[in-house]
Amino acid sequence: MRVAAPYLMFLGDVPDQLAAKTAQGIVDWRPEWCLGQLRLPGCQADLGIADMTIASAVAHGARTMIIGVANAGGVLPDHWTEVIVAAIEAGLDIASGLHARLASKPAIRAAAEAHGRQLTDVRHSTETFATGKGTKRPGLRLLTVGTDCSVGKKYTALALEKAMRARGLDADFRATGQTGVFISGRGVAIDAVVADFISGAVEWLAPAAAPGHWDLIEGQGSLFHPSFAGVSLGLLHGAQADAFVICHEPTRRTMRGVAHPLPTIADVIDLTMRCGALTNPDIRPVGIAINTEKLTPDAAAALIEETERAHGLPTTDPIRFGVEGIVDRLVAEFPHSARA
Amino acid sequence: MRVAAPYLMFLGDVPDQLAAKTAQGIVDWRPEWCLGQLRLPGCQADLGIADMTIASAVAHGARTMIIGVANAGGVLPDHWTEVIVAAIEAGLDIASGLHARLASKPAIRAAAEAHGRQLTDVRHSTETFATGKGTKRPGLRLLTVGTDCSVGKKYTALALEKAMRARGLDADFRATGQTGVFISGRGVAIDAVVADFISGAVEWLAPAAAPGHWDLIEGQGSLFHPSFAGVSLGLLHGAQADAFVICHEPTRRTMRGVAHPLPTIADVIDLTMRCGALTNPDIRPVGIAINTEKLTPDAAAALIEETERAHGLPTTDPIRFGVEGIVDRLVAEFPHSARA
Repeated sequence: MRVAAPYLMFLGDVPDQLAAKTAQGIVDWRPEWCLGQLRLPGCQADLGIADMTIASAVAHGARTMIIGVANAGGVLPDHWTEVIVAAIEAGLDIASGLHARLASKPAIRAAAEAHGRQLTDVRHSTETFATGKGTKRPGLRLLTVGTDCSVGKKYTALALEKAMRARGLDADFRATGQTGVFISGRGVAIDAVVADFISGAVEWLAPAAAPGHWDLIEGQGSLFHPSFAGVSLGLLHGAQADAFVICHEPTRRTMRGVAHPLPTIADVIDLTMRCGALTNPDIRPVGIAINTEKLTPDAAAALIEETERAHGLPTTDPIRFGVEGIVDRLVAEFPHSARA
Repeated sequence: MRVAAPYLMFLGDVPDQLAAKTAQGIVDWRPEWCLGQLRLPGCQADLGIADMTIASAVAHGARTMIIGVANAGGVLPDHWTEVIVAAIEAGLDIASGLHARLASKPAIRAAAEAHGRQLTDVRHSTETFATGKGTKRPGLRLLTVGTDCSVGKKYTALALEKAMRARGLDADFRATGQTGVFISGRGVAIDAVVADFISGAVEWLAPAAAPGHWDLIEGQGSLFHPSFAGVSLGLLHGAQADAFVICHEPTRRTMRGVAHPLPTIADVIDLTMRCGALTNPDIRPVGIAINTEKLTPDAAAALIEETERAHGLPTTDPIRFGVEGIVDRLVAEFPHSARA
């Protein structure tokens, strides 16, 4: 799944900033790709970038209009169709994170066919994958894993990409969720793949590479989540992870959407090592990322210090304190990591 | 996914008996549902049941014509269309195990619409599932797990159903693969479900039941298979298995389709206990089923005895020696198992 940059960010008339969370994530991580925002009358979200017409976006070189908003029910409102058709007619591809497929609107489908433009629904996989083979491939891979869903796995992988590239290392973020696909311009929404092809899709996503190149693969779910552990295991096997970072949210009491308690960080390290060894016997943890947003600075610092001591792994909150310690460990453990 | 019995078995003009393996499995396990076979000129397969015309099948009460044959490429040959359309016009539903969808042929789709008949492609899931919740539900569940794919998991679950019912126990086979769906008339091809819904689909397949009722759930893949372990883990979590039987093929050296060696039976017991405990802390092994087809009778008996001693679990080859020992253990371990 590929999305051509740069982007015009379409916000429609969503009622609040939260509905534009995906779009905001794209602007945060790829400001250079986000030429401007297109808002309809009544829109209550603002990405803090220039308002822009379709014509102006095209004149500035835009390739794709991104529908990076959440909507009640994930539907595509009828009154957005006209703008989307106009964007297609002006030469833009359309990429959407909604549940509803773009082509479900006949006018949009017809315009795309007539003008030869690409419609991409990042929540729906159209790629045909092979089943995973588990054959060791060259290149280095790091996977972010979690004690739960939504604990910072995407953020941590992106922060590692940024920090590693700043040191001149050859590293690429690999997206496995819709926001990540928009941010990296390619990837696969792994939870939308047919079950037989989970690990195969990850083998496609993070293919053989130069020996010192790092793929930083966005994890999904948790091996301990009763809804999604199958996805997490297929991801781990397909990634053939050399290294993993455990992501955790310390104030959560039950796993997202279910009544199960969170596993401990030690549980996650242990089961990830055990299952990951199937496709990479040398798998090892290289750091812990704790989302301390709900803690005071003192409490956050204390928890991080305590966790680092307990596990002997560099521990941080990537948002508050960066990920330099984890990169230090990574370079020390994998001295053949290459410069770009 | 439901398939209405009884069946007319369509064999087309397949070139050999192996191509009719699925159809043969249905006849073996549900002879009372298979009224007759319909073969085209040149067909080299024979299910050993009466040849029957569509009209005669309808007169005998047939509800569905089953396309239970494998074909080069899984395609639906053009010259089968006419017969399929005739069956629809005569009032039969059609259920197919081919990769190609029945509705991909306009004539078949049109006939089904015109006559209000159901087209079922058991390899493709159309059901919409919820994500798994992991909430403990009443009823007892047994899952067959494996050291690999294709080691007898379906056969073992069906043999257990037969033996348990013969003792008057309240037990139902639950199908997770295409042949199993035809055999039980309902089920879900779990490897065709979107990854996010693996465990949810199994919660649907084996729902809350009477406290002493057994669901005997057909396993898929292996927790140690680098292609399919995600499916196996989601299946285990969704099943909330109280009991499991380990299935094994002792002469295989590498896992099906990949270069990985097989895990040991002890490995499978250990990881199944560990991961299964997430949704059922009381999970336990109750038997081992070894496919000894490639061993001499003496070698088979010796291996079974040795395996039984090593693991302290009733061990058998279900085909050669039945599954009574496993049922004995099941009833002893779960004295509240109910009579039908």
